[in-house]
Formats: sequence, structure tokens, C-alpha cells
Amino acid sequence: MTIIFYDIPSSAPGSSWSPNTRKARYVLNYKGIPYKTEWVEFSDIESHCKKLGILPTSTKRAGGGPHYTLPAIHDPSTGAYISESTKIAEYLEKTYPDTPTVFPHNTIGLQWPFNDAYTSLLTPFWMFILPATFEKLHPVSQAYYRTTREAFFGKKIEELMPTGDAATKEWANCKEGLGKVSVWFEKTDSSGPYLLGDRVSWGDFVVASYLVWMRIIWGEDSKEWKDISSWDGGRWKRLVESLKEYETVV
Amino acid sequence: MTIIFYDIPSSAPGSSWSPNTRKARYVLNYKGIPYKTEWVEFSDIESHCKKLGILPTSTKRAGGGPHYTLPAIHDPSTGAYISESTKIAEYLEKTYPDTPTVFPHNTIGLQWPFNDAYTSLLTPFWMFILPATFEKLHPVSQAYYRTTREAFFGKKIEELMPTGDAATKEWANCKEGLGKVSVWFEKTDSSGPYLLGDRVSWGDFVVASYLVWMRIIWGEDSKEWKDISSWDGGRWKRLVESLKEYETVV
Repeated sequence: MTIIFYDIPSSAPGSSWSPNTRKARYVLNYKGIPYKTEWVEFSDIESHCKKLGILPTSTKRAGGGPHYTLPAIHDPSTGAYISESTKIAEYLEKTYPDTPTVFPHNTIGLQWPFNDAYTSLLTPFWMFILPATFEKLHPVSQAYYRTTREAFFGKKIEELMPTGDAATKEWANCKEGLGKVSVWFEKTDSSGPYLLGDRVSWGDFVVASYLVWMRIIWGEDSKEWKDISSWDGGRWKRLVESLKEYETVV
Repeated sequence: MTIIFYDIPSSAPGSSWSPNTRKARYVLNYKGIPYKTEWVEFSDIESHCKKLGILPTSTKRAGGGPHYTLPAIHDPSTGAYISESTKIAEYLEKTYPDTPTVFPHNTIGLQWPFNDAYTSLLTPFWMFILPATFEKLHPVSQAYYRTTREAFFGKKIEELMPTGDAATKEWANCKEGLGKVSVWFEKTDSSGPYLLGDRVSWGDFVVASYLVWMRIIWGEDSKEWKDISSWDGGRWKRLVESLKEYETVV
């Protein structure tokens, strides 16, 4: 039976843009598990999850109530509803053990904390990519995105983007952050583009999900994506291209 | 030839207590590489490193100059001087490829960022363990420890330790932090005590180094160590005991 995959739409090519949903989408495609996408606007995620009994993934910063996020999946063959990308990956590993693993060599315990280590280095990107993302959302999701992101940053989305010298400096910080991630890849004694060398795994999907977000939102011909593609010896462009076949949106 | 291993002494049993030096010590013992310890007081680390040409490992928080830390090693067979525990592990892997690896299955790229993900969850411990550590240092190192730690926390070492209800609450935060680390271990589908299941690796040495620090400073019979030993189904005591043979101080 076909898994239902809940993702957030946009006006960008392919519609799917969220790095968090992409992690799960990468895994579904990599494993070759049949699924189809159902699109849920930001503003509908909470009611959608409550209706289906999908668990919240964290606690809201403001007010402290349950926070519902995507990705989520429904697997009709087991009846399961699962939210949060690492939990989805873990569920698919256990439920479909004959598909290719994203946690080879029992590395799940090392891969689990990887996401936080990586995204903490991406912080300088948010002020650039969030306003651009906002522009690509459908109006009903824009309203939700504005409210939540402006509450988090304490300023209007239109004021997030740095300008002039500040932009140059902050963009250099973005490059420095990815440079530190590049060091992790360099440590692997291998010619492969992946964290484990020639063997793709969860950590690569995590890294690539944020890069694909940027490529999709800014576009391949943008100054930003061309910059990123030139950093670290072209590592990021190569990584994303090597995983292109798993970007498919169905 | 015998590697010289530079460690920080104390009045605790075995003298060695620092979690950062223990990471490298674990690796030397695990690999079975001959070494001997030379003890360097905190206050002498900078002059010691400068004299030998050992590189600083970071930048000082105050003033921004080079910050010299231990562990460091000198390998007379190559002439190399290496500082910082992950760099020492990497050096030993490359220089002694016939010894057991601490980065099995090409996991170095995943293991590299593990330390930060782990120690960020240990933050609540600092206010308890730092004052107790101070008590075990030799007087000349105490002076250095006081200056640097008090500058960092903005309060006197004697004021760090919480009391009453605050102590109960902060100790519960310590338990919660290790509980999150326990989840990473639980993910591994194996009966082994290690992050990769039955195969020890760098991440386990990182986790255990901080636990051994606590056991050494507080003592096996302390209320604190008995508490930690009881958490997460006894996971932490089991982990540390399974690595006991690699604690040797020579």
C-alpha cells in the first residue's frame, strides 16, 4: 500500500521546499517505498494533525502548548501516523527492513544528534533565506509564517535581511559555517562525496536538505546559489547533485 | 618509541581527571600505543606549549589571544607535537593504522561533531562539578582555574553550586540532559553498551570521559555518582565500567 506523505506547498518549482520535509522525502525515495504527497498549508498543520491523531513534535515557544509540524506520514499498511523526520526515518527502517538502510553500520546513535550539530552552524543563513522563503509561500501560509517567524526574531520579515556591509559580513559567516561542516566531510578518508565516504546515509540527507531548500528558493541561477556552489571546492553542489534522483516529488 | 602525553594533575586518585585529556588517554590505551604521562599544572600550560611549539587550540574568551589547552602529545618517532583530543585521535589513526580504529566504518565525519552535541546537554552539570573539581586541584592550578572559570561564569567558584530547591531542580536538569543522550544509545538496535552497538568508538570515549571525571572528582561512594549510576537503567555505570581497562594512567 501507498504511504501518504504530508508536505508544505509553495509556488517554487516542484512545490516542496521545506528542509525538514525533504529529509523524510529523501528517505522515502532512497528506500523506494511507494508514497504520494498530500499538501497541507502551514496554517492547516495543527488542525490536520489533531484530526488524524498525529502527535506534536515539540512545544510552542510562545505559550508552551503542543507544536505540530510537518513532515508526517500515514502508513495504511500498519495504520501508523508518524511525525518528525528522524522518527519517520526510524519507522521506515524498522517497518521496511528489506529496503536500503540510511543508518548503515549501526550508526543511528551517531546520526541522531547530527542534525543539531549541523543546523547550529547554519544560523547565519536564516536572515537571508527566511524572507526569500516567505515570498514563495501561498498567501494563507504566508500569514502563519509571518506570525511565527516575527515572534521568534522579534522583527518584521521585511527587516530580517541584512544590507550593505552587514550583508557582506553575514554572508561571510554563512560561508564560514558551511566551511566547518566541510571539515567533517574532509575527515573521511575516501573519494566519495558522503559523510561515510562512498556510502550515503542520514547525515548526508540532513546536510543536503538545507542546501536544496536554498537552491529551490533562490533558484539555480541566483547569485546566492552560485556562491554556495563555489564554496569548499564545489562540495555542496556535488553533494546535492549526487542525491538529485532522490528529490523526486510524487 | 614512547609517546609523551601531557595531562593536568590533581589530588584525586590516579591524578588524571580532565575529561578532555581522558579522551586522548582512552585512545592511546585502546590502541595499545606506548606512552608515558608528563604532568603540567594549569598555570604552566601556556608556557609549556609555547616552549615546545605546541599549537593553541582556540581563542581566549577574554582578550581574544591564543588559548593553549591540554591534552597534547609529543611523538618522538615522527617529531610531531599535537594538541586537542580529536586531532590527537586523528593523528594516531593515521600514524598507527595497524592499531584498533576508534572511527570504524569510516565514521570520523559523523564522530567529529559528536562532542559538541553531547557536551551541550551536559551544561547543567557544570555548576555542580566545577566547584568540586576546584577542590581537587593543586594550589597553583587552583589559582588559574579560579580566574578563568570566574571570568566565564561571572561569579565566584564558591557561589556556583546551587542550594536547596535550586539544587534539586538543577540536578533534575542534569538527569534530563543525560536522558537525552541515553535515547541516542537506545536507537542502536543491539545489545551492546556502545553508540555503534557492540563496537566501541570515539563517541563512547567522549561520553565516558565526562562521566569518569564526575566519578573521580566526587568518588564512587558519593551521592552524586550513585545517582548517576542509577539513571537510565544503569547505562552510565555500565558504559564506564566496560571501558575501565582503558583508563590506565601510565
